Amino acid sequence: MRSKENRAADLMMLQDSITGFLCKLDPSLKLKEDLWQREEGGGGRTRILADGDIVEKGGVNFSAVHGPAPAFMKADRFFASGVSLVLHPRNPMVPIIHMNVRYLETSLDGKVEHWFGGGMDVTPHYVFPEDARWFHQQLKAVCDPFGPTLYSDYKKWADDYFFITHRNETRGVGGLFFDFLKGTDTFPLERVDDFIFALGNQFNPIYEHLTRNHGISFTEQNKTWQLQRRGRYAEFNLVYDRGTKFGLETAGRIESILMSLPPLARWDYNVIPAQGSAEETTLNWLKKDIDWLSAK
Amino acid sequence: MRSKENRAADLMMLQDSITGFLCKLDPSLKLKEDLWQREEGGGGRTRILADGDIVEKGGVNFSAVHGPAPAFMKADRFFASGVSLVLHPRNPMVPIIHMNVRYLETSLDGKVEHWFGGGMDVTPHYVFPEDARWFHQQLKAVCDPFGPTLYSDYKKWADDYFFITHRNETRGVGGLFFDFLKGTDTFPLERVDDFIFALGNQFNPIYEHLTRNHGISFTEQNKTWQLQRRGRYAEFNLVYDRGTKFGLETAGRIESILMSLPPLARWDYNVIPAQGSAEETTLNWLKKDIDWLSAK
Repeated sequence: MRSKENRAADLMMLQDSITGFLCKLDPSLKLKEDLWQREEGGGGRTRILADGDIVEKGGVNFSAVHGPAPAFMKADRFFASGVSLVLHPRNPMVPIIHMNVRYLETSLDGKVEHWFGGGMDVTPHYVFPEDARWFHQQLKAVCDPFGPTLYSDYKKWADDYFFITHRNETRGVGGLFFDFLKGTDTFPLERVDDFIFALGNQFNPIYEHLTRNHGISFTEQNKTWQLQRRGRYAEFNLVYDRGTKFGLETAGRIESILMSLPPLARWDYNVIPAQGSAEETTLNWLKKDIDWLSAK
Repeated sequence: MRSKENRAADLMMLQDSITGFLCKLDPSLKLKEDLWQREEGGGGRTRILADGDIVEKGGVNFSAVHGPAPAFMKADRFFASGVSLVLHPRNPMVPIIHMNVRYLETSLDGKVEHWFGGGMDVTPHYVFPEDARWFHQQLKAVCDPFGPTLYSDYKKWADDYFFITHRNETRGVGGLFFDFLKGTDTFPLERVDDFIFALGNQFNPIYEHLTRNHGISFTEQNKTWQLQRRGRYAEFNLVYDRGTKFGLETAGRIESILMSLPPLARWDYNVIPAQGSAEETTLNWLKKDIDWLSAK
């Protein structure tokens, strides 16, 4: 295994590559960078993107933190580094996208454990099955060189993870989610290391494709629905998301962690879309275990 | 102790009294009532209020539910009834108000436990110390006939409970919070029963006083700040609030539980109010252990 310092340097380069791409894709985007340090050890490079034509608000964050492990980790010390991004588009016809790749290390009485986690998933305000199919095809193409069951395993993990239990709906059309990848005979840790970068490097072409609808016109009703769906996104992140909880419990930098929250969201009472509407069709797609590779 | 059916009837009358008052105070308010039943037992009367001149969105809910107890209760069966309200005003100079009074009963192997819980608290978007002082004076006047330390005990409990740890700020200027009041020699259960209704009955005059600023003009900046503070309110309710968690874990009616969420909220990155601004003054008031009875 290479050193964690080398990997952290590559994660910073990934952050550079993605923010560079986004600023080129959406030249009116305003980038704000905050460098921060954590009292207990380590720090990060928060990059907030706002007020673009395509992206209303989002962030692409890098962090590498270490120190005494919080209680829930059952370890003495920990080290964590990763890149995490969430982008909320202006146009309701463009999906919210989320990606995270991370490396974790804990030690307990001298025994060291290492693992990788992360994933990529999209949350359309309006589901277009052909876009979801295309997205899942790209993810499968990233996974297949690393093992024949990776895509189906991590796709199912995403379905289970990005589920809003109290609403009985998925957050979006899913994607990949994986955690605690500690290496196996057929998928050793070095290959997992390569895999998370293969995924990270596919972000730019995937997002470029998914934002091609950003010029489509939309109505006030579409916008209201978008804000309501963003409310669901906030519910998921605040109630269930492990990354958010991890950040809150490790006394992470709160403004970097909560950059995932939407610029504007709304909650209306008991919204029930009209029969046959695009909103109703979208709700019908927000289910687990859809085979997106053949969806239409 | 009187029967739980009698108390539930009084709680419904309290709900009637409050919704009647609100519709008179704010005649343009639209009231929507939903009667619902819970599969496992019991049900409720959800009343959503929206689009008033004073109240932008809120709800005054009654429920009385029972059935097999969820795991976290460590009991066989439970019964819970209460009135819960949250009102989000249109004008940023009017505070958000929350009140809840509830009765709980559990049984385990034939052993029955009963207790009361609840409270009332306000979350101003802009803190006016004289309003906070007046509010706490009213609460003290409700508490004092029931015991000399009630106000200070439950005021402290509210400070500790309505605290957004990850922001290191209180939700608002507090008020009263109490739970697991099972009766003592000096404050027997029958008196606790009277106390929660004494509190509930003070809601109308308190809210009438607190909304007297609703005619004050405000700027776009005031409105933006209001939406940012509502974001904090959503964070508290989704991350920490026990009532919300209780509802989610007892498979309560989700639209009734989440009526507390704001009509519109926003999250901006790292908002830091200008030195000497009203926003900065407000943040300085959002601390525990302020003696509001003498604040100015």
